[in-house]
Amino acid sequence: MTMDISRDTQLCMSLSGRPGNFGTRFHNHLYQALGLDYVYKAFTTTDLPAAIGGVRALGVRGCAVSMPFKEACIPLLDELKPSAARLQSVNTIVNEGGRLIAHNTDYVAVAALLQTHGVDPTGRFVLRGSGGMGRAVLAALVDHGLQGCVVARNAQAGPAVAALHGLPWQDALGDAHQAEGAWLVNVTPLGMAGAQADEQAFPDGWIARAAGVFDVVALPAETPLLRAARRLGKPVIGGDEVIVLQAVEQFVLYTGVRPSAAQIAAAAAHARAL
Amino acid sequence: MTMDISRDTQLCMSLSGRPGNFGTRFHNHLYQALGLDYVYKAFTTTDLPAAIGGVRALGVRGCAVSMPFKEACIPLLDELKPSAARLQSVNTIVNEGGRLIAHNTDYVAVAALLQTHGVDPTGRFVLRGSGGMGRAVLAALVDHGLQGCVVARNAQAGPAVAALHGLPWQDALGDAHQAEGAWLVNVTPLGMAGAQADEQAFPDGWIARAAGVFDVVALPAETPLLRAARRLGKPVIGGDEVIVLQAVEQFVLYTGVRPSAAQIAAAAAHARAL
Repeated sequence: MTMDISRDTQLCMSLSGRPGNFGTRFHNHLYQALGLDYVYKAFTTTDLPAAIGGVRALGVRGCAVSMPFKEACIPLLDELKPSAARLQSVNTIVNEGGRLIAHNTDYVAVAALLQTHGVDPTGRFVLRGSGGMGRAVLAALVDHGLQGCVVARNAQAGPAVAALHGLPWQDALGDAHQAEGAWLVNVTPLGMAGAQADEQAFPDGWIARAAGVFDVVALPAETPLLRAARRLGKPVIGGDEVIVLQAVEQFVLYTGVRPSAAQIAAAAAHARAL
Repeated sequence: MTMDISRDTQLCMSLSGRPGNFGTRFHNHLYQALGLDYVYKAFTTTDLPAAIGGVRALGVRGCAVSMPFKEACIPLLDELKPSAARLQSVNTIVNEGGRLIAHNTDYVAVAALLQTHGVDPTGRFVLRGSGGMGRAVLAALVDHGLQGCVVARNAQAGPAVAALHGLPWQDALGDAHQAEGAWLVNVTPLGMAGAQADEQAFPDGWIARAAGVFDVVALPAETPLLRAARRLGKPVIGGDEVIVLQAVEQFVLYTGVRPSAAQIAAAAAHARAL
């Protein structure tokens, strides 16, 4: 990547407990492809108020926020846009002349994917999991018009997340008839690279009855769940689509420029190539 | 410049009221030449405590400090090295695992130049000016062993700076006999690019009697004062040497690597080429 940094170069960054390289590589690749005078780098911190204060005081243009800071940062910001206020969870901060404006592009990305994949707004879903990303997915599903239920082992977070939308909660998958005509949505780490890589979040018997499968696991792009869904001929939405689209929405917020589909694909391939 | 930024890339930066491009271009060029995983960028701020807090909280490895922050930053730091404590003025912060350590590489650079140019430690100087950089130069001259006096129009700063070292102050150049065998040192903006570009800080009659001439003005590298000194066959020390050497000392503090003379010359040429 070629870049020539000057005093006028805008810095964008991320704050997370365990920084990855996807955002750094994705954004820097697009800056370069589009000739934008920006540079991006991932950070971590043990002092969130000072880190956010630094974003404001140094005029850092944009800051992605990941676990475990998505909720903790809220009192440190100046304004919550509807996407962040809806979830009480922030994944993107835009610095508008010293005012820190919060967004949640995970929500925006999932809402857009439900549209572009033509998910029937009158349909149903079964969502498995209750983590931070689950909140964004669940709100987008409900706002898209769907009815559904939350399946989560965690007896605190599960019912709490479901109650945000007045939805029923159950602690384990019940009978496969629940899957009839529904979108099966995985927001757990089941199938993610690592100890649970071989786990399939919904069994074949469920998938066979479903309208489609949505897995937010991004690494690998092809989880056991998505592989089974494709084998059974079901429409799928993958976590790699979410991670790329949410990053595109951040890019647009930071730069005011919307890259082309080909530019996005090239940047995503570059970012994944590590 | 080619660089591939990742989560592991170390950020170094500068804080000043009016950021220039010298440091950004100099450091990035050397990082690239030496294959170091660092990136450098200049910043300004209207909230110094938050900016310094951000340096600490984000793990920014190093931060150059320029006007008007060189003294104001002191209470925000954790430790002053002798170079900074001597001057009560900081131009370099090194972040050692969250502890912010203050240095003054202007002082270090000037002290080194007095050595390498073989300035006689038993000699005398006449220093004209009383600004921030003047403090570093004056302390280095005195610590090198020289005696001298301060000439400064400013009736507050002039005597105050002189009194730091128990030296006499006068408000204007007196008789040329004062120059006899002395180093003439300019720390005013006389000769600097801009409104005072044509002004010569010491007249020819002084230069002819002097042991040498030291001008801290860095832009242009060849001031009327240095041009006159060369014409009159006197040894000279230039501000461009100070600005480069102090940046080299910062580079060594940040990276632990000392570049070669050829690498320094190439980086300085690149940085000046803007």
